[in-house]
Amino acid sequence: MSKLYKGLREEAFEGNLGISKRGLAIYTWGNVSAYDSHKGIFAIKPSGVEYDKLKVEDMVIVDLEGKVVDGKLKPSSDTETHRVLYHEFVHGSFGGKVAMRSICHSHSPYAVAFSQARRTIPVYGTTHADHGAFEIPCTEIMDEEAAKGNYELETGKLIIKTFILRGLSLLQMPMVLVAGHGPFTWGENAANAVYHAAVLEEICKMAHLTLALDPQVEALPDYIIKKHWERKNGPNAYYGQQ
Amino acid sequence: MSKLYKGLREEAFEGNLGISKRGLAIYTWGNVSAYDSHKGIFAIKPSGVEYDKLKVEDMVIVDLEGKVVDGKLKPSSDTETHRVLYHEFVHGSFGGKVAMRSICHSHSPYAVAFSQARRTIPVYGTTHADHGAFEIPCTEIMDEEAAKGNYELETGKLIIKTFILRGLSLLQMPMVLVAGHGPFTWGENAANAVYHAAVLEEICKMAHLTLALDPQVEALPDYIIKKHWERKNGPNAYYGQQ
Amino acid sequence: MSKLYKGLREEAFEGNLGISKRGLAIYTWGNVSAYDSHKGIFAIKPSGVEYDKLKVEDMVIVDLEGKVVDGKLKPSSDTETHRVLYHEFVHGSFGGKVAMRSICHSHSPYAVAFSQARRTIPVYGTTHADHGAFEIPCTEIMDEEAAKGNYELETGKLIIKTFILRGLSLLQMPMVLVAGHGPFTWGENAANAVYHAAVLEEICKMAHLTLALDPQVEALPDYIIKKHWERKNGPNAYYGQQ
Amino acid sequence: MSKLYKGLREEAFEGNLGISKRGLAIYTWGNVSAYDSHKGIFAIKPSGVEYDKLKVEDMVIVDLEGKVVDGKLKPSSDTETHRVLYHEFVHGSFGGKVAMRSICHSHSPYAVAFSQARRTIPVYGTTHADHGAFEIPCTEIMDEEAAKGNYELETGKLIIKTFILRGLSLLQMPMVLVAGHGPFTWGENAANAVYHAAVLEEICKMAHLTLALDPQVEALPDYIIKKHWERKNGPNAYYGQQ
Repeated sequence: MSKLYKGLREEAFEGNLGISKRGLAIYTWGNVSAYDSHKGIFAIKPSGVEYDKLKVEDMVIVDLEGKVVDGKLKPSSDTETHRVLYHEFVHGSFGGKVAMRSICHSHSPYAVAFSQARRTIPVYGTTHADHGAFEIPCTEIMDEEAAKGNYELETGKLIIKTFILRGLSLLQMPMVLVAGHGPFTWGENAANAVYHAAVLEEICKMAHLTLALDPQVEALPDYIIKKHWERKNGPNAYYGQQ
Repeated sequence: MSKLYKGLREEAFEGNLGISKRGLAIYTWGNVSAYDSHKGIFAIKPSGVEYDKLKVEDMVIVDLEGKVVDGKLKPSSDTETHRVLYHEFVHGSFGGKVAMRSICHSHSPYAVAFSQARRTIPVYGTTHADHGAFEIPCTEIMDEEAAKGNYELETGKLIIKTFILRGLSLLQMPMVLVAGHGPFTWGENAANAVYHAAVLEEICKMAHLTLALDPQVEALPDYIIKKHWERKNGPNAYYGQQ
Repeated sequence: MSKLYKGLREEAFEGNLGISKRGLAIYTWGNVSAYDSHKGIFAIKPSGVEYDKLKVEDMVIVDLEGKVVDGKLKPSSDTETHRVLYHEFVHGSFGGKVAMRSICHSHSPYAVAFSQARRTIPVYGTTHADHGAFEIPCTEIMDEEAAKGNYELETGKLIIKTFILRGLSLLQMPMVLVAGHGPFTWGENAANAVYHAAVLEEICKMAHLTLALDPQVEALPDYIIKKHWERKNGPNAYYGQQ
Repeated sequence: MSKLYKGLREEAFEGNLGISKRGLAIYTWGNVSAYDSHKGIFAIKPSGVEYDKLKVEDMVIVDLEGKVVDGKLKPSSDTETHRVLYHEFVHGSFGGKVAMRSICHSHSPYAVAFSQARRTIPVYGTTHADHGAFEIPCTEIMDEEAAKGNYELETGKLIIKTFILRGLSLLQMPMVLVAGHGPFTWGENAANAVYHAAVLEEICKMAHLTLALDPQVEALPDYIIKKHWERKNGPNAYYGQQ
């Protein structure tokens, strides 16, 4: 096992533990990867290993062509989905600007409920607007041909297609629901990707509780969405210590 | 107390603690047993003892005729249900192939809710499909004659009848809801039977949250169910490290 | 402070901690008392003291006429409700047979929801039937005259009247919901009264989740209710180690 | 960093930790401030710092004109909302009587759900009546002009306007929901402001569960609301040890 990837393995490892610590999945139902843009490789959870048995050195190093570069275990069965998204981060519509370098997949129950109900989540409140000025997209159900092909790769392509159809870039909205499946989120690093997974679950829980009170509830007016988004994320953002 | 059954007692004991650790029942409301196919006996929780007072040596050893073979305490009041299921595992439609050797009964709240509402659970998402390619069956309400007879034995027979009517073997689906009562699950060992109980509760919670968003929600298309089931369980399964 | 009441104070103290440990109320919103039938007095939580600051010696000793016999603090504001129920246990329809000697009042959220919706809870499943063969009663809303009089005493009288109208004795059903308020439970000792409070909350949660799936869900048939009640509580009970 | 504000900083710090300890917000989504009426300044959480990294000395000291008086970090982005409310406590309708000297803002999920559904909370039960004899108000959605102006200051003004329109003083009801956003609560000190935030979340949870059982549920009769409010808060209050 090469020492070259120690830092990246540690980042991915801590991210995977974050899934368990934040209650975003039970047993092995989730995975986090972290990308190194200089080396063009990413570290990802091995397939089917429980969080409390996971070790740093178990993280598998995979390159952008999907080849295992280092590691003794098989990478996550969702590796192809991660790979397609990193490919898009690097070569896609961002023109090489790799602002996102970690991906998190979980099975948190409220996010799964919206995925299973195949519903996007309108911006019902400022908790959502603080983290994204748009609906959280939900993909279509994958068609039969794609599902029978390279299923995990097609999942990544379905996510990218969903963003293109909405005219959204993956930088504008770090969260998506895959219909009938569950959430994928991304971020600047593993901690941030897991943060977005926890935020998504909380937004979904709040939306679920809100819809129970009023199934026809209106979304926030655009001027409040804009205000909250910009105070945290715009050029004149004044939230936080930067 | 014979030392012959030490390993089996420990396995059943750890399984019973798992019910409490995973939050699948409060107080004494659940029980796990583990079967030894060579000796033809199983170890089961004693009746009415709380999880935090349970000791390894409290596990009661019972044979396939229902006779207590070893142990100072009375076995679980649900022992006859376990016994009938083991009988089916050994002598039933599997033709002697004992792939399942542990049973778990719990009162986890979402699974109980579907049992009380007497509803099977369609495959709404991949979390379910990863663990079974079929609806999770719910039995009929037991009829009066059976309930007034050997109630716990009849519960086991009701479960087996439910599978026969659906053309399902107990190996294809390790979970069932008993109408008006609650869940029974099984597995290759005690940890696996408890795993299935936790999985069932999570699937039920996700289904409950989904139905609240859309009471007419469609099940997953068959081709996605098949894909997820096979990537974890089919002859070409590629999930996990085996 | 007299040493005469040490054991009783300890029992009531442990019961009060049980409310917090079992998550049945936050802050000070609940109280447990324990009765000594020889001395004709009970120990009860002091008013407005948080569980994590409570000490054994804080328990207040009160007699059946409502006089504080020992203790430096004011007893719970609900003391009169407890007193009326003990009076009924001792002098009421049981003819002096004091089988119940502890009372627990909590504000657990699912039980409060049914209280606020002013609904009794039919026997939807065996979890309920294991603990009582009847609907869990909910009182009427207290009338204006009673509420303006000795409110807490009237709460106790309202509970007793609710049981009389249903032809139930307080021994047959150790739980009640006070409309617009919350649950009271009782038992053979403080641990048992708190056990019934935790059971009630779990039954209410299961009923709530069930009604969300089917608002018209049927209760269990009487023959299954009877079977489950009798296997735990009837003359031929076979549950537990006795 | 001046030692002048040590006590106030500690109070605000403990209050902010209370948000996390009581589960009222994840990550940084909440803030508590504490006011010193002699010095005319308040201590408030710094912007964007997570609870588990927060230190006492991080608390920022701000005066009633909004100027940072002491501290190395930027104050919470919600500082202007706190400032407007303190201004009202000091100079507003209370005529200088500063009974309230701490404010808590959280994003607890049930309170957010009612905020997002833009609903006031009627007094459905005694848990609510114990803490306030009135509906918990929900503001209108902020209009566009206000949202584009000094947004956080306008949030404070919207809260005050909501109370004026209802003929309520901020002393009579220590809780409010800001439509599309979430709850603000206040109290005699930081512990009490956080207490009110936890109480509000519990009342919202109970109301949510009640409305699921009966969307047309009636509020408590006025004579019971009055009774419960007065036994804890009226001139003849008899709850607690005072």
